[in-house]
Amino acid sequence: MARKQRRGLSELLRVPGGERVDLGGYDARATTGGPKDKKAALAVTAAMGEHLAQLQERLWAASTAGDRRRVLLVLQGMDTSGKGGTVKHVIGHFNPSGCRIKAFKAPTPEERRHDFLCRVRRELPHAGEMGIFDRSHYEDVLIARVRELAPPAELDRRYEEINHFEESLAADGVTLIKCFLHISYDEQRRRLLERLDRPDKHWKFNPGDIDERELWPAYQEAYEVALHRCATERAPWYVVPADRKWYRNWAVSRLLLEHLRALDPRYPKADFDVAQCRERLLKGA
Amino acid sequence: MARKQRRGLSELLRVPGGERVDLGGYDARATTGGPKDKKAALAVTAAMGEHLAQLQERLWAASTAGDRRRVLLVLQGMDTSGKGGTVKHVIGHFNPSGCRIKAFKAPTPEERRHDFLCRVRRELPHAGEMGIFDRSHYEDVLIARVRELAPPAELDRRYEEINHFEESLAADGVTLIKCFLHISYDEQRRRLLERLDRPDKHWKFNPGDIDERELWPAYQEAYEVALHRCATERAPWYVVPADRKWYRNWAVSRLLLEHLRALDPRYPKADFDVAQCRERLLKGA
Repeated sequence: MARKQRRGLSELLRVPGGERVDLGGYDARATTGGPKDKKAALAVTAAMGEHLAQLQERLWAASTAGDRRRVLLVLQGMDTSGKGGTVKHVIGHFNPSGCRIKAFKAPTPEERRHDFLCRVRRELPHAGEMGIFDRSHYEDVLIARVRELAPPAELDRRYEEINHFEESLAADGVTLIKCFLHISYDEQRRRLLERLDRPDKHWKFNPGDIDERELWPAYQEAYEVALHRCATERAPWYVVPADRKWYRNWAVSRLLLEHLRALDPRYPKADFDVAQCRERLLKGA
Repeated sequence: MARKQRRGLSELLRVPGGERVDLGGYDARATTGGPKDKKAALAVTAAMGEHLAQLQERLWAASTAGDRRRVLLVLQGMDTSGKGGTVKHVIGHFNPSGCRIKAFKAPTPEERRHDFLCRVRRELPHAGEMGIFDRSHYEDVLIARVRELAPPAELDRRYEEINHFEESLAADGVTLIKCFLHISYDEQRRRLLERLDRPDKHWKFNPGDIDERELWPAYQEAYEVALHRCATERAPWYVVPADRKWYRNWAVSRLLLEHLRALDPRYPKADFDVAQCRERLLKGA
């Protein structure tokens, strides 16, 4: 029973493999499986922080004894969906030393000369680390599809290449948690307007964001295809309702907690003579 | 008056330039300029967290408009002095997205083939970032001196090279905050014994730590020379009493706060037509 509850949210938010995805059927204001309101969510999320940090320490400790496992959280979503806020609030729970965070921007000319996965491989978490991608290789099948930066056959190839890539990561000890932060069209308007209303938020605003917004339906469709084609057994996609920030932060924290608990990393046993070391310390040294 | 108070701790802990350093004269249990006890320190440090995060956001925001400034916190100290704990507790205040943290280990054979500063240059913070070095290029004049990994003339050259390097960083907009976390010989014994007493800390223990401890006087002397030769106007050293963890965390937070306040980063002004963007959003898009 307790076990079932612990695995709960992953099952609730997971995109079913092999089925077409209709994002219109997902409520961005939903609070699936979550606390009853904002106040409760803030308390529960804060309380999860300590567990997350403990599990992260164990994951890191295990890596010092050869455990190759690590976690990679992939955050995708429309502008203002809260990718940056999630890193700040959720990843803020962890010891920053063990986190490898990468925000992917538009590829540089140099990056464009290589395969699209090349720059992603360089940023993967090492053994024992928590990797966090704010945007990822999925941009190469999202904006690339919407803006027609690649022909359809090339996009087709990319979905397959992504699946092979993620399968090989999973085989190499990477626990992939891919979250689509799902906001509604209206909520995006509210958030963009808020950025305009506050001079201390202007730096986050780019008039180009409005041009992208005009392509909303095309982006939703591009996400639907990517979720459909790349939701695999070992690299699942989760649709996280993200209109309510408190739910989003709770949900991503909870997904991380469930996965870290399932990994159950252990502190390694001492590979030296503890009693002898104690004696040396107490004597002279 | 308020201004003077704000700059206070930097002045109190700063190693005076040009003078020989005698670490025997620095009390590792001191609470120089700090709160009166642990309870007060925890409260004050937590309260600083929000200010630090706000200043970090402003530094980052300013970088999006071309401000090249960034901060580099260098942490040095004997084993168990709390370099890792400082990253966890102090850097945990910040948005992890804007932090670039690097723990330097013994150089790899490949790294050894290059100048000792080469691997350091690769890990420098970018504009707007908070860089944190857990150990640094100073290892190349510390362990290198104690273990005689380099001849005296080469060490001499390195102090000079470090000063040139740090001067060039400062000229390029890097605010350097170099902290020597100063613990006592007895406190190190206590902390090593604690690691032995707790199976969940064994992974942090290495019998080699006891061998290093036997070289304590040589390390203290190596630090004294490094602090003496590399405490410059633009790249000062701070001796942070570190036997009390609550003071250490408070002090490093405070040093960061003072330096970030002095930088006084500003949110950039909008370089687009705010009213027009608002209209576009409210109309159709």
